[in-house]
Amino acid sequence: MPLDIPDSPMPRVVIVGGGFAGLNVANSLKNKNVQLVLLDKNNHHTFQPLLYQVATSGLEAGSIAYPLRKALSGAKNAHFRMIEVEEVLPSEKKIKTIAGYLKYDYLVIATGSKTNFFNMKDIEQNAAQLKSVSNAIDMRHLFLQTFEKMLLTDDESVRTRLFNFVIAGGGPPGVELAGALSELRKMVLPKDYPELNLDRMRIILIDPGTRLLGAMSEFASKNALKYLNRLGIEVKFGVSVKTYDGRVVTLSSGEEIPTEAMIWAAGVKAAAIAGIDASLLARGNRIMVDACNRVKGMEHVFAVGDVAMQEDSRYPNGLPGLAPVAIQQGQYVAKTILRLVKNQKPVPFKYWDKGALATIGRLKAVGDLPKNLHLRGMIAWLAWLFVHLFYLIGFGNKVMVFFDWVWNYITYDRRVRLIVRPYKKNYEPEGSR
Amino acid sequence: MPLDIPDSPMPRVVIVGGGFAGLNVANSLKNKNVQLVLLDKNNHHTFQPLLYQVATSGLEAGSIAYPLRKALSGAKNAHFRMIEVEEVLPSEKKIKTIAGYLKYDYLVIATGSKTNFFNMKDIEQNAAQLKSVSNAIDMRHLFLQTFEKMLLTDDESVRTRLFNFVIAGGGPPGVELAGALSELRKMVLPKDYPELNLDRMRIILIDPGTRLLGAMSEFASKNALKYLNRLGIEVKFGVSVKTYDGRVVTLSSGEEIPTEAMIWAAGVKAAAIAGIDASLLARGNRIMVDACNRVKGMEHVFAVGDVAMQEDSRYPNGLPGLAPVAIQQGQYVAKTILRLVKNQKPVPFKYWDKGALATIGRLKAVGDLPKNLHLRGMIAWLAWLFVHLFYLIGFGNKVMVFFDWVWNYITYDRRVRLIVRPYKKNYEPEGSR
Repeated sequence: MPLDIPDSPMPRVVIVGGGFAGLNVANSLKNKNVQLVLLDKNNHHTFQPLLYQVATSGLEAGSIAYPLRKALSGAKNAHFRMIEVEEVLPSEKKIKTIAGYLKYDYLVIATGSKTNFFNMKDIEQNAAQLKSVSNAIDMRHLFLQTFEKMLLTDDESVRTRLFNFVIAGGGPPGVELAGALSELRKMVLPKDYPELNLDRMRIILIDPGTRLLGAMSEFASKNALKYLNRLGIEVKFGVSVKTYDGRVVTLSSGEEIPTEAMIWAAGVKAAAIAGIDASLLARGNRIMVDACNRVKGMEHVFAVGDVAMQEDSRYPNGLPGLAPVAIQQGQYVAKTILRLVKNQKPVPFKYWDKGALATIGRLKAVGDLPKNLHLRGMIAWLAWLFVHLFYLIGFGNKVMVFFDWVWNYITYDRRVRLIVRPYKKNYEPEGSR
Repeated sequence: MPLDIPDSPMPRVVIVGGGFAGLNVANSLKNKNVQLVLLDKNNHHTFQPLLYQVATSGLEAGSIAYPLRKALSGAKNAHFRMIEVEEVLPSEKKIKTIAGYLKYDYLVIATGSKTNFFNMKDIEQNAAQLKSVSNAIDMRHLFLQTFEKMLLTDDESVRTRLFNFVIAGGGPPGVELAGALSELRKMVLPKDYPELNLDRMRIILIDPGTRLLGAMSEFASKNALKYLNRLGIEVKFGVSVKTYDGRVVTLSSGEEIPTEAMIWAAGVKAAAIAGIDASLLARGNRIMVDACNRVKGMEHVFAVGDVAMQEDSRYPNGLPGLAPVAIQQGQYVAKTILRLVKNQKPVPFKYWDKGALATIGRLKAVGDLPKNLHLRGMIAWLAWLFVHLFYLIGFGNKVMVFFDWVWNYITYDRRVRLIVRPYKKNYEPEGSR
């Protein structure tokens, strides 16, 4: 028995990836008439929209990650295995992992997306990114170590460099991270670092376009910029990061910004899986799927969430890589598989656009709702809080998350400011020895 | 200004290490007439007696670690720097760090202890240890990954190896860890791993002596053994671990135990600091101090806690390396320095032995109190709980720790079962490919 999965008279559904899409497929197939096998290289689901809170010491990792075994517990037809899938072999209806091959009757590819460094090796090596819990903890360590290092030098040029925080990418992750960093600067650091002149700390957000939150409305962009400016964040439009050696960022304009903390939030690409023919990949490596989320030309292979590229008349580039799309597609594909098992015809997927929200620091957010409704300020922030808390509570971390969150928001008590391992860069720290 | 510490008209007390000893020196010197500089390579104090709880997913790291900046906050005379001290130069009254030299008027060495592998490189490289938060998180990852790997193979010999957990050392860390692991086996794993036959999981505790908890009473040893046996833990006396290659432990008896999880809890040695003459070091690298905790022959250098070796008529090998000794010595040295600053004569240190407690699983413990009083069972466990909670609450994590702890104890809800980075060993995992 490869991967020690028992044989079953029921058809086997193998789901690769436990993100929003994959977990929703799995949840919807619990205790149904299929054998359900969920595979992920991590043992937890990650609530990605709040990774920036972990990176800025606002929430514990445990508050935004949820063990996949626990998500499946009680479902007798479910099997979780922590393993990376190396390749799909659709002609043989099986997948290849480091621990052997596994046959499937239905395969759901839900491998999500990863940071796109656009082949800039120096940036990949030296910049921080924010796609996993591990990334978020690394980034937290980078920030905390940078603050500590500010107090270890009296070299003004070193200090200037340490005081600069550069974020590349004005999408939701960049904007939310900039807001949270400025909150840290204003509310948390003065208590921990009374010796530092935090007025010198610069947060610089860089975007090659002309507005923030490019996928949202002009209204959202305008208000997001206003809020960021109020928080003292410098926004540079029309330039991009060209190089970063761990000490100096060089922009396309030629400008150089010394910094030890550069965050790359300027793009993602699908984490497509080996064995899917290149002809089936669209822009950003996404796997082209039909209206029923089937990989084009394949009967038993589905792709859902960020890794899938599904055409939709409302979206010229296909459905966006957002959590609500992944959740809806996941639930849809589970239903579709159950229909196919019963020899019923599948019904095409229909995306219900519920809008988008982005938060900027505490108590401020922007939002686009359906029917051209727009929110901003406190009301948008309350909507954001409600949506996120609701989701997190929904997946079971109920009491602790709620407590953790409320506690942190009320007290700014960042007990999570622990450096438990060094953030490694490819150069040695310099001293004033 | 090296390390950016401002000049001060007050005498400068430099404390190296923020463990029980160093933190208590610092706490007692807050807002006194000295300049206080606390240095530690970590940014947090670690409540070491509960590291095994973090390793077994019982508590979050944040519940047993406390940011040193927060500990010092509000004290205008205090400066914390996160840095490792490389050398002491007593003749020049200064220390050397990676970021430069720092002068002191009084120096307190509180560098604690570290795991003693007795020069067995293979064990150092392949075994897990438990002296820091980072170690505890690593060990947690090792355990969780081992459970996950059990389900990735159908090779019975690999599975047997994965089911074996070997702990070397029958002192309090080994005994407490064994108890917590058996609790995990009994209460947590059956829910998460219904597919595993956990009866096959062996927890083997190895000690070269003839009884557990060698530093405690015969009463404590006997009851600890009884409790461990009840929990199904195998205890092997009179043998020691000779080699471990990451797959097989070889004992001094020649017996071989296949295991991927070997925990080395069989010894510590003082983390003595360069610059202290070898003639001043006692057994286990401890720095010999006089009755006033001054390093022998030095007027302005103190050593406290695990790193210090202080003679006491009650203890043939000097005062033991226990938290209460470190705490009392720390408070004492702070007072002594304040006396010296005022040109008063120091009074010798007197250790107040409050006894010792060790817990074995949930609801069971053993304890030795002064005047030959002994505790066991539930009453000892309640004493243990009270002492530990009292201390943790004392250092400020109040509400969250209490909540975290009670929550975990009531519900066994181990939301901290996250694997956020791989535990690295020096070999590649094998597959059944």
